[in-house]
Amino acid sequence: MPVIVQKYGGTSVATTERIRAVADRVVAARRRGFDVVVVASAMGDATDELMAMAHELTPVPNARELDLLLTAGERIAMSLLSVAINAAGCPASSYTGSQAGIITDTVHGRARIIDIRPGRILEALGRGDVVIVAGFQGVSTAYDVTTLGRGGSDTTAVALAAALGADACEIYTDVPGVFTADPSVVPGARKLHAVSYEEMLELAASGANILQLRSVEYARTHGVKVHVRSSFDDQTGTWITQEDARMEQAIISGVAADDSEAKVTIQSVPDRPGSAAAIFGAIASEGASLDMIVQNVGREGRTDISFLVPKADLPRVSARVEALVGEVGAHGYTLDDDIARVSLVGAGIKSNPQVVADMFAALSDEGINLEMISTSSIRISCVIRAEDADRAVRAVHEKFGLSGEAGIRSEHVTGTASS
Amino acid sequence: MPVIVQKYGGTSVATTERIRAVADRVVAARRRGFDVVVVASAMGDATDELMAMAHELTPVPNARELDLLLTAGERIAMSLLSVAINAAGCPASSYTGSQAGIITDTVHGRARIIDIRPGRILEALGRGDVVIVAGFQGVSTAYDVTTLGRGGSDTTAVALAAALGADACEIYTDVPGVFTADPSVVPGARKLHAVSYEEMLELAASGANILQLRSVEYARTHGVKVHVRSSFDDQTGTWITQEDARMEQAIISGVAADDSEAKVTIQSVPDRPGSAAAIFGAIASEGASLDMIVQNVGREGRTDISFLVPKADLPRVSARVEALVGEVGAHGYTLDDDIARVSLVGAGIKSNPQVVADMFAALSDEGINLEMISTSSIRISCVIRAEDADRAVRAVHEKFGLSGEAGIRSEHVTGTASS
Repeated sequence: MPVIVQKYGGTSVATTERIRAVADRVVAARRRGFDVVVVASAMGDATDELMAMAHELTPVPNARELDLLLTAGERIAMSLLSVAINAAGCPASSYTGSQAGIITDTVHGRARIIDIRPGRILEALGRGDVVIVAGFQGVSTAYDVTTLGRGGSDTTAVALAAALGADACEIYTDVPGVFTADPSVVPGARKLHAVSYEEMLELAASGANILQLRSVEYARTHGVKVHVRSSFDDQTGTWITQEDARMEQAIISGVAADDSEAKVTIQSVPDRPGSAAAIFGAIASEGASLDMIVQNVGREGRTDISFLVPKADLPRVSARVEALVGEVGAHGYTLDDDIARVSLVGAGIKSNPQVVADMFAALSDEGINLEMISTSSIRISCVIRAEDADRAVRAVHEKFGLSGEAGIRSEHVTGTASS
Repeated sequence: MPVIVQKYGGTSVATTERIRAVADRVVAARRRGFDVVVVASAMGDATDELMAMAHELTPVPNARELDLLLTAGERIAMSLLSVAINAAGCPASSYTGSQAGIITDTVHGRARIIDIRPGRILEALGRGDVVIVAGFQGVSTAYDVTTLGRGGSDTTAVALAAALGADACEIYTDVPGVFTADPSVVPGARKLHAVSYEEMLELAASGANILQLRSVEYARTHGVKVHVRSSFDDQTGTWITQEDARMEQAIISGVAADDSEAKVTIQSVPDRPGSAAAIFGAIASEGASLDMIVQNVGREGRTDISFLVPKADLPRVSARVEALVGEVGAHGYTLDDDIARVSLVGAGIKSNPQVVADMFAALSDEGINLEMISTSSIRISCVIRAEDADRAVRAVHEKFGLSGEAGIRSEHVTGTASS
C-alpha cells in the first residue's frame, strides 16, 4: 500500500477539539487507501511552557535533562491523537522517537538523525494500524533521549518519509502554504504553488518560519516530495520538490526577514592565512550556528570579519570571541543584537543582475541603511536595523510586484505537483 | 555507600518552587553520605489533567495509548527535579521507567512489576550521580510503556529500594505520616509512630490513601523498611516495618473509609459447587479488582452473593454480570454505587472479641445501618450508605478513644524504628 507521512504542527493539535479534527483527516487518508504515518508536534505552546519551568529553576538547565523534559510535549500530543483515532474506529498506535527507531548523535538540544530503524513502524503498518510518531525527538547512540532543535518535527517527518519510501510528506500547519512574504507583514503576499528545494532552503535560512532548515536539506538529499498545507481546510498548499522541466523559470519566489540573530564583528584581524580558520574553528567548537560570514578586502594588513549567530548562542559565543581577539591579534570586537536580516530568494537572481540593483534601490528609497551584504546564486541578504525589518520587507515585496497577479512572473507553475 | 530511596508525591513537586525545595532535601541526603535514588510523581494534578483530556476525546481511551499519555507527567517532574539538583551543584541524571529497567507485565493501566534491571541506575550511582526515576511506569515484556495504577510511584520506590538493597524507602507526602483516621474527617486523629506491614496492608485496602496497597505488599515480601513522612518539615513520620518484639501489642491502629467502590449483588444464585467459581472467574477475566466478597448461608438451595468493585470498573463488570445471571441460573442482580466501606484495623482485633461488638455499637448508636460485614484477623469492614461515612469514622474513632493521649493504648511504640 502506498505510504503517506503527515506532520501536524502545534497549533493544529492545540486543543482536544483540534486533535479530533486531525484524527478525522488522518482517518480520511487511511480510507483513501494509504498507509498513514503521522508525526505529532507538542500541543500549542507546551514546549515553551516546559522550557519556561526549567528556566524558573536555573538559567542554564542541564542539557540531557532538558531534552527529557521537552520530549514530554510530543508524547502527550501523540498519545492523545492516537486515542482520538482509535475512538474514531481506526486502529492506531503511537511511538516515541526512541520506539520509532529514530537514532541520533549525542548532541543534546540539536541532535542530528543518523539512522532510522523503522522495524516497529513497519510491523504496526503491517497489521493495519495508523502509526503516530512523536516529532522532534530521538534516542542517541548513548541510549539517551535527544531533541532535534526547534522545528525538529519537520525533520522527523521528512526522515520517516525517506526511510519508508513515502509518496509524499505532508506538513500541516496554520498557514495555507509558502508565501512570497510573511502575510502578517505584507498583506498582499501571495501563496506559491511550488518552490524548488534550493529556494526553500534559502527561504528557510532567511527566516521564513515554515519549515526547519534541516528538514529541507534532508528532503533535498533524499528526494522527498514535501507538501506544506493548512490543517484548517482542504486547499492545496505549496509543493517543495525537484526543479524540473515542467516548472517555468521563476525570477523571485519571496522575501523573508529574520531578527533572531545577532551580529558579531571582530575588528582589525591580521590579514594572514589561518586567522579565519582560527576564529571559526573556535566558534564552531561552541556548537553555535554560523550565518552570513562576511570579510571584505583588508587595508594595511588588517580586516574586519563579521558574522551572525543565533541570539540564544550569544552569551557562549561572546566569551569565546573575547579570548579570540587576543589569540589572533585583533584589535577588538563588537556585538549587536538589534539587527535583522532581509533576504530576497529566487532562482532567477543570478542570471539577472538588475535584481540586486532593484533590491538595493527599494531599501535606499526607504532610507534604510545596509550594514552587511551577502549573496548566493539564488539569494540576496542584507543586514539592517531590526526596527526597519517590516518596512524593508514591504518595500522589496512591492518593488518586485509580488502581490496579487500583477508584476513579473514570480512563481513556479506546475501541472502535476499538486495532484 | 549506603543507598536511600526517596519518593516524592504530586503535591511535593506541584510547582517549580517546591521542586527546588525537594532538590535541597535530596542534596542534603547526598551530603550526609548516601547514594540517593529519587522517585518522582507527576506535578500536582498533572495526571488527572492528562486523563481528562483523553476523556474529552472518548469515554474509553485505548489502554496502550493512555499509558503513553499518562507517563508524560512523571517525565516532566523527574527532568525538572534533575535540572534543579544539577543547578544546586550536585550531579544528577533522570531515567524513565523503561530506562531504569522497570520491567512489567503487559496489563496496561495496572501493570505489575516483574523484574528490576537497575544497570543504568548502578552505573549512574557509580559515577557519583543522584539518580531520579520516573514513578508509576515501566516497560512491558512487549516493549510497550505501561503504568502501575494510581499510587504506583509508591511501588516503584519500594521495588527500587528492594532491588538496590536500600537502607530505607522514604515516602514523602503532604501529610506527616499515617494517622488513626483521616484528620480532615476526625480532627483529633493521631499520628502513629509505627505500624506493621500487615496493619498497613489492611489500612491501605480500607481506603487510607497513604500508600498504594501493592507497595505495602512489595515492602512486606522484600522486607523493605518504609518511612512515610512530610516533605514540608523534618519531623519523623510513620515507620512501616516488620512487627517485632520491641513493638508493644497494639489493639487498634486506625479507622478508614473508602467510597470509591460500588456494591454488586447477584440474587438467588443456585447454591451448588461451581457457582462462585463461575461468577468470580468471569469478573476476574474483566480485570476488575474484587473486594469484600460476602456470601451468607443459603435458603431453599439459593443464596445471594455480594462483592465490591471499583466504581471505574462498574460499566465493564455490569455487562458481564447481566450475562452471568443467565449462565449460572440466578434470579437477578443489583448495582449500588452510593455506598462506603468503613474499616477498623488493628493487630489486637482477633484476640479481643469486644472490639467487634464495640464497633457495631458505635455505628448503631449513630443510627447507621450495616449492609454488609466482613472481617479478617486484623480488620473489620462494614458497608454503609456513602452519606454516613464521615459520621461513622468519627463515631468509631471516638468509641476506641484514638484521639490524643487518652483512651486505650492504640499505638506501637518502638525504641529504634524512627532513628
